[in-house]
Amino acid sequence: MKTKRFILQDRDLPTQWYNIQADMVNKPLPLLNPATRQPMKAEDLFPVFAEELCRQELDQEHSYIDIPEPVQEMYRYYRCTPLVRAYGLEKALDTPAHIYFKNESVSPVGSHKLNSAIAQAYYCKQEGVTNVTTETGAGQWGTALAYAARVFGLEAAVYQVKISYEQKPYRRSMMQVFGAQVTPSPSMSTRAGKDILTENPNYQGSLGTAISEAVELARMTPGCKYTLGSVMSHVTLHQTVIGLEAEKQMEMAGEYPDTIIACFGGGSNFGGIAFPFMKHKILEGKKTRFIAAEPASCPKLTKGKFEYDFGDETGYTPLLPMFTLGHKFTPANIHAGGLRYHGAGVIVSQLMKDGYMEAVDIEQLDSFKAGCLFARAEGIVPAPESCHAIAATINEALKCREAGESKVLLFNLSGHGLMDMSAYDQYLAGNLSNYTYNG
Amino acid sequence: MKTKRFILQDRDLPTQWYNIQADMVNKPLPLLNPATRQPMKAEDLFPVFAEELCRQELDQEHSYIDIPEPVQEMYRYYRCTPLVRAYGLEKALDTPAHIYFKNESVSPVGSHKLNSAIAQAYYCKQEGVTNVTTETGAGQWGTALAYAARVFGLEAAVYQVKISYEQKPYRRSMMQVFGAQVTPSPSMSTRAGKDILTENPNYQGSLGTAISEAVELARMTPGCKYTLGSVMSHVTLHQTVIGLEAEKQMEMAGEYPDTIIACFGGGSNFGGIAFPFMKHKILEGKKTRFIAAEPASCPKLTKGKFEYDFGDETGYTPLLPMFTLGHKFTPANIHAGGLRYHGAGVIVSQLMKDGYMEAVDIEQLDSFKAGCLFARAEGIVPAPESCHAIAATINEALKCREAGESKVLLFNLSGHGLMDMSAYDQYLAGNLSNYTYNG
Repeated sequence: MKTKRFILQDRDLPTQWYNIQADMVNKPLPLLNPATRQPMKAEDLFPVFAEELCRQELDQEHSYIDIPEPVQEMYRYYRCTPLVRAYGLEKALDTPAHIYFKNESVSPVGSHKLNSAIAQAYYCKQEGVTNVTTETGAGQWGTALAYAARVFGLEAAVYQVKISYEQKPYRRSMMQVFGAQVTPSPSMSTRAGKDILTENPNYQGSLGTAISEAVELARMTPGCKYTLGSVMSHVTLHQTVIGLEAEKQMEMAGEYPDTIIACFGGGSNFGGIAFPFMKHKILEGKKTRFIAAEPASCPKLTKGKFEYDFGDETGYTPLLPMFTLGHKFTPANIHAGGLRYHGAGVIVSQLMKDGYMEAVDIEQLDSFKAGCLFARAEGIVPAPESCHAIAATINEALKCREAGESKVLLFNLSGHGLMDMSAYDQYLAGNLSNYTYNG
Repeated sequence: MKTKRFILQDRDLPTQWYNIQADMVNKPLPLLNPATRQPMKAEDLFPVFAEELCRQELDQEHSYIDIPEPVQEMYRYYRCTPLVRAYGLEKALDTPAHIYFKNESVSPVGSHKLNSAIAQAYYCKQEGVTNVTTETGAGQWGTALAYAARVFGLEAAVYQVKISYEQKPYRRSMMQVFGAQVTPSPSMSTRAGKDILTENPNYQGSLGTAISEAVELARMTPGCKYTLGSVMSHVTLHQTVIGLEAEKQMEMAGEYPDTIIACFGGGSNFGGIAFPFMKHKILEGKKTRFIAAEPASCPKLTKGKFEYDFGDETGYTPLLPMFTLGHKFTPANIHAGGLRYHGAGVIVSQLMKDGYMEAVDIEQLDSFKAGCLFARAEGIVPAPESCHAIAATINEALKCREAGESKVLLFNLSGHGLMDMSAYDQYLAGNLSNYTYNG
């Protein structure tokens, strides 16, 4: 009997997240207060984020952090997600590579984002918060937060990047079904939004702008905290449930990945699947390769600079030590809205600098070509973001075919693309194009 | 530890489908040749369907029919689907009822339809067929067949009811991503379509019309067979994997359902979950209630007549002994496209006549209200069809609250509604209405 899916029993699910910061040889550089240029402490972040999340953000001591029982209970609702052997894709590529993917698209909201949304909403509730706010690009994060807020009885206000709001109106409907308030960003509801619209009334928005608006709302509203779907270290911490499960599931499959691949926006789905495996590279010198697949039009890892930069457009956030294209960078209107961010998380940036991982960039047309091939082979229509991971995996699998090598490739299917069919429609009609990065 | 999801291991998955015809006290009446009024034999159906499917259609002898190993292999890709205890919904309704649902929405194509699509495509391939054709309403079946055809290397041509084609353009994109040809019905590509369009150029289509077109294409094209997503007995046979799994999963949960509920279009998701449990009602007199939830605007079970009628608009099919609103019935433009069919499958019709089950009708607005409540409570946006089952379940759960009874309710979540967000959008904006059935 050929086993295609590997699934853990509830009793084998992770009860702790993995905090790679504790094991890193070179720790991430500190976040800096932009006014004083002094390193920030957890308390300095309290006005914006739930306190426990601030502590997790800067924790460089504890390798493992307990997952609270109510969060575990919600995880058990949709986790363990399947580890799938992609026999269909292998056959379509005629490759000797063994291709596995972790299927995060089966979460009720359709992506890995729920893993952190549940944790963030839980800590906010615990600390007496009544309202949460956030930004969203493609809408995967906004949807996850909208549902998680509902679970813990919080109100949610989401700023959605205007281009995505227009490209994917049904993401907005989905957030509204879950009871969230959704505003296209830039909006006139914040000073940051007003300033940007005054300067450029037709601005299509960016994650950086939407973050400015949400942070401003959180600062101005009593009982309201800001939450973020990627980039921050505590978000990636929560996403390590993906890799921790995958490690046990690969054991069930009797293999160990040679190469681990994920798409890259701010780094949370990448770090989520990669870090539990990377631990063995850091501590035991294991030779696993880690590949971040970013869009050619937003190539922060392959063409950005490692420097201190703001996380948002307006400059409300601390200065972050990261690979960045500059916080004023305006991304092209690619459909992978979740990858249109100018910077990389501080942990990943340090690991990239230290050579633990590599990055490739993928053109938009190649990403959709890969997505369609995958859909026909495996039956799942992948999110445009995930298509980047698939394209990078296909490239590796084809190298294996040329070399006649049976390498084990594992990628993260971060979400499904069922809310992105307009993009597929345009791709199939030949109406999509690539975008050049002009530095 | 509160268990929310019950999942079987691969080794416990069904290896046979359950054929309720063999156990029925009053067997379904025969299908009749419309010209001669003579009962049809399996051979008479060979020109249209794969031969093995024709034999399954009329099999009243074997209680269990083996699932071929390649079909089991594909099932293992996404099955067992979770049985979920809907704690969130119970809490939202403040009911002492225990509510469970079988989550068929996790299939890669988003609904239970894949269970039969895989089987039908497999038998077609086995018998040397190269092309398959079918009709689809909401697009759940068309999507499933498109993917299943791809898996077994068949070409697929899908006639989609025009109103759904226009209401849900992204379903078309999804079928096209899987490589199917999609035509809005009525079309000018068949005689049946031409005749209907000549009479009424603005006709929005119906499943009955789309069936006529697909059957005509299959008859006229060498190497091409017709496939159907519901109504036929062999389709419901394949869907019994749902109930067979659910039976074992309810055992894991330590309960037995008092009431089993599913939405009702042609009967395949209903029969799929109900029949393995109904076996015990027929053979052992167990008191379980079975409720089919149909739309108030297409009430074949609650307001239709039991009589011989055609399965399609034009009259290409055999005469079927069933509850029907008449094969010329034009359904209202409700968003639950999969429930807009004039007749009920012959097995269900006989069971209904014999009092083994009951039916309720649900207004469109009540269905969406129930769907939104469920989404907020459980995180899954249900298909408009499934919303009917949820509405009926909520009604039962509220009766339990009034009576202070902890009944065990089980419903089938036949699919997710992520391709139906335009309908939710209209509902939330107050732009949907109910439709009266005028007989």
